[in-house]
Amino acid sequence: MDHHIVPVELQKAYRLLNHGPTVLVSASHEGVENVMSAAWSCALDFAPPKVTLVLDKATATRPLVEKSGYFVLQVPNMAQLQLTYDVGHTSANDTPDKLAKAGVRLFRVEGYEVPLVAGSSAWLICKVLPEPRNEQVYDLFIGEVVAAYADDRVFQNGHWAFEKADPRWRSLHYIAGGNFYAIGEAVVADTNKT
Amino acid sequence: MDHHIVPVELQKAYRLLNHGPTVLVSASHEGVENVMSAAWSCALDFAPPKVTLVLDKATATRPLVEKSGYFVLQVPNMAQLQLTYDVGHTSANDTPDKLAKAGVRLFRVEGYEVPLVAGSSAWLICKVLPEPRNEQVYDLFIGEVVAAYADDRVFQNGHWAFEKADPRWRSLHYIAGGNFYAIGEAVVADTNKT
Repeated sequence: MDHHIVPVELQKAYRLLNHGPTVLVSASHEGVENVMSAAWSCALDFAPPKVTLVLDKATATRPLVEKSGYFVLQVPNMAQLQLTYDVGHTSANDTPDKLAKAGVRLFRVEGYEVPLVAGSSAWLICKVLPEPRNEQVYDLFIGEVVAAYADDRVFQNGHWAFEKADPRWRSLHYIAGGNFYAIGEAVVADTNKT
Repeated sequence: MDHHIVPVELQKAYRLLNHGPTVLVSASHEGVENVMSAAWSCALDFAPPKVTLVLDKATATRPLVEKSGYFVLQVPNMAQLQLTYDVGHTSANDTPDKLAKAGVRLFRVEGYEVPLVAGSSAWLICKVLPEPRNEQVYDLFIGEVVAAYADDRVFQNGHWAFEKADPRWRSLHYIAGGNFYAIGEAVVADTNKT
C-alpha cells in the first residue's frame, strides 16, 4: 500500500464526506469487480460512522454490493476528473472492460475483500446495514464505515488540507453534463460569536 | 418576493444540491419558526425530485418538521457564512431569539406555510414522505421537492454560475469547528471520450 495512505480514526471519518464530494463506489463479488461514480452519497452518523448511498437498480455495481454486503466510497480528486466522469457514464453491463478503459487501478487493504481505487484522496470501507424497504423503494443503501483511510498529502491530522495541497488533490462536485466544480478556498466562521 | 428569485423546473431541482452544499433547514408549526444548518442532506431522486435530510432528535427544528410535514432546504452562500455557522451552533431550545441573533430574515411564497430564509442562493420546499423507521432509527427524513427557486444572479438556465457570479454567491461546504470550504472553479470532463 502506498506509504501516503494512512488510517483515519473512525470518529473523524464523517469529515471525509462532510463537504459533499462526488464519490467513487467500488464493490466486488466472486471475482467480479466494479467501480461507478455517485453524487448522491452522504454522511448519516458520527459513531459508529454511517453513510447513505443511492444505487440505481440499473447499475452493475449494485448486485455486487447486495451479494457481498460491502462497498467502498472513495473521494476522487482533480487528477481523476476524467476517470470519475467515465465510470459514471459507462456501465459494465454494456462495456465489460469499462475499468481498464477508464484507467482504474484497484488495490486491497488487509482484512477486506472489497477493492479500493488507487489515486483517490480518501477511502471509506462500508458494511451494508440491510434496510430492504429503503433499497427497494428508494434505491437507498445505508452502510456502516468499518475502516477509513486518506492520503496524507491532502488530509492531515483529521482535517482536509485542500488549501495547502497541490490543486490536483481538490475534490470534485458534480452537477450534470460533464460539469463539475472543484472544492475551493477555506473560509472560517467566528466560533466565539454565539 | 425579490425579483431575482425565479422558479426552478422540478426536474432540474436536484442540481441545486448535487454538488453537496451545506444547507439551511427551515420549518414552522402553529406560529413557531426555526432555522438550522445541516451538512447531511442529499438528493435522492430526479422525478419526482426527492431529498434526504438528517435531523437529530435534539434539534428544535425536528418537531416543527414532524408536526407540519414540511421543510425547506436552502443553499446558503459566502455572504451567509456566519449566519450558517450560528444557526447550526445555537438551539432555539436554549436561545429563544436565535434567529434574530443570527440575523435571519424569513419570507414566504404563495401556497406554502413554511418560511424561507432571505438572501440564500436556492430554496427547495419539501413535503415529508413519512418513513417512521428511518426517522426513529437513523434520524433520516425523506422529502419530496414540491417547489424550487433560485436567485438568478447565481443559478441561470438550469445551471449554477458560480464561476461567473460575484464570490459572495459561492456555496458553503462545512467540515467541522467553524471550518468551511467555498465551492471552487468549474472543471469539465470530456463527455465524448466514452
